[in-house]
Amino acid sequence: MIGIKSIASYVPVEGVDNYAQGAKFAKDQEFILGKIGSTFLPRKEAGQETSDLCVEAVKALFAANPSLAPESIDALIVVTQNGDEEGLPHTAAIVQDKLGLPTHVAAFDISLGCSGYVYGLYAMKGFMEAAGLKNGLLITADPYSKIVDPEDRNTTMLFGDAATVTWMGEGAPWQLGKAKFGTDGGGAAHLKVSDGVFFMNGRQVFNFALLKVPAHLHELLGESQLAPADIDLFCIHQGSAAIVDAVARRFEDDPDKFVKDMVETGNTVSSSIPLLLEKHVLGSQHQRVALSGFGVGLSWGSAIIERKG
Amino acid sequence: MIGIKSIASYVPVEGVDNYAQGAKFAKDQEFILGKIGSTFLPRKEAGQETSDLCVEAVKALFAANPSLAPESIDALIVVTQNGDEEGLPHTAAIVQDKLGLPTHVAAFDISLGCSGYVYGLYAMKGFMEAAGLKNGLLITADPYSKIVDPEDRNTTMLFGDAATVTWMGEGAPWQLGKAKFGTDGGGAAHLKVSDGVFFMNGRQVFNFALLKVPAHLHELLGESQLAPADIDLFCIHQGSAAIVDAVARRFEDDPDKFVKDMVETGNTVSSSIPLLLEKHVLGSQHQRVALSGFGVGLSWGSAIIERKG
Repeated sequence: MIGIKSIASYVPVEGVDNYAQGAKFAKDQEFILGKIGSTFLPRKEAGQETSDLCVEAVKALFAANPSLAPESIDALIVVTQNGDEEGLPHTAAIVQDKLGLPTHVAAFDISLGCSGYVYGLYAMKGFMEAAGLKNGLLITADPYSKIVDPEDRNTTMLFGDAATVTWMGEGAPWQLGKAKFGTDGGGAAHLKVSDGVFFMNGRQVFNFALLKVPAHLHELLGESQLAPADIDLFCIHQGSAAIVDAVARRFEDDPDKFVKDMVETGNTVSSSIPLLLEKHVLGSQHQRVALSGFGVGLSWGSAIIERKG
Repeated sequence: MIGIKSIASYVPVEGVDNYAQGAKFAKDQEFILGKIGSTFLPRKEAGQETSDLCVEAVKALFAANPSLAPESIDALIVVTQNGDEEGLPHTAAIVQDKLGLPTHVAAFDISLGCSGYVYGLYAMKGFMEAAGLKNGLLITADPYSKIVDPEDRNTTMLFGDAATVTWMGEGAPWQLGKAKFGTDGGGAAHLKVSDGVFFMNGRQVFNFALLKVPAHLHELLGESQLAPADIDLFCIHQGSAAIVDAVARRFEDDPDKFVKDMVETGNTVSSSIPLLLEKHVLGSQHQRVALSGFGVGLSWGSAIIERKG
């Protein structure tokens, strides 16, 4: 069974002081920290491409896992909606080349936003098992600084650039349990790019998240014969502090099990959940963790991962 | 085991007379039919979006399979590099909405070109098995008329618009066998979009295909303990008549087993292989068929499918 072996990430050191941004839009520090949730938003350099962020994350993974030889990689997925090129080629091919990975790598991109990591876990596990592959790199990299208008108060205080990579393979300490997914293209207009600029209807997205995510997690737990008390930690997409807090409040007995950690990163789209796993789960004593990602599409996905052995 | 249950397609009725296009570029009918392979190139209407092509293909699938209820669909993948919107949202979400499919559908896009169907088969099968899903629609729709310059003699005589859908589920007559994949981002520049226009270095792509595809198919057969004689039909990407012929010649004893059928469709990118399967395989007596897709990335994938029961 293919599972999660290791996670690494790349978060740019440079970025934007979000208190300063808030002041520009007459938002006080309480709003920036309490509602938005981020005092600093990492930004890639202008010359850095999406593939460069991916490469940095994978280099960190190789550095942390000397046993993982680049030539043993045989699957590579990049979850992004802001890749290097205009539609084609796919960013995963560029990453294969920049890293000098072998040409026997199976590589493709998955187009999904904030729900992308949960989908990506099952797409990678399933693809590897169906095709008999051994070592997969599931990369997330969706630098919204490419599409966010710095004058748009609805979006410019929210998003941070980052990339993560999850090494998936046999003999992994974390295995994937049950998952549930959902899609409602009827809400596509609430989060979209037009003429190169990102638009978000924040109120609609907040309402969507609050309507869907707690119910979806409760359903997933019920179908897994689990109660919230059986979950050690909830790692949900860090859309904003307000969204994480509102979802957590729907779990009356366990709101403290919801990790909120985005002060220095912002909303990193599909990288938010793997950043939480890297920091709060992989090196922990936790046994069972619930994930939920939600956003553009509209699209959502929830899953349970469990420590084995 | 998830396999291939049915395939349907949508090919626009309107299109371009390729002999007339050839005359414009001083290419005779022998070149158009013998080297390019297509006398007619279907073109979507200007107002048709990529998702509309997908919807037409799925409607044809539902019409041909009355037992398949729309509400039973729980997975939807669109293979495209020319989706509806600018990166986000993904086209699969728009298709979910336009078809009125249930919101419990797991939907995402895969960004791949002419290799995309072979990857898509294993991504869909694997994702469904990993997530416990029952009825998946694997859609291909990559209308190159969006990006091809009608004045570019290297590309405008090649591509046709089309969409296909492959119903995947349990109890399927066709099962997926062994597969092999490959990626060489070092050749990305040979097939790419810049400033909204598609560029192709035809000679480099031809050389790549001739270098990679026959060897890849021979390796796949060898690893499957099969000889070319054990394969009933080879359905490879219909890049051009010249490419199909050149690959077939590398199988000295069996060149006639390579289907060449693109006279009325052109190179339909990721739709070329499922169009062949729909027409030449699903209703046939064939027992074992080899597939190979290759193109933008550079990327390639080969697989064997087998009739069961």
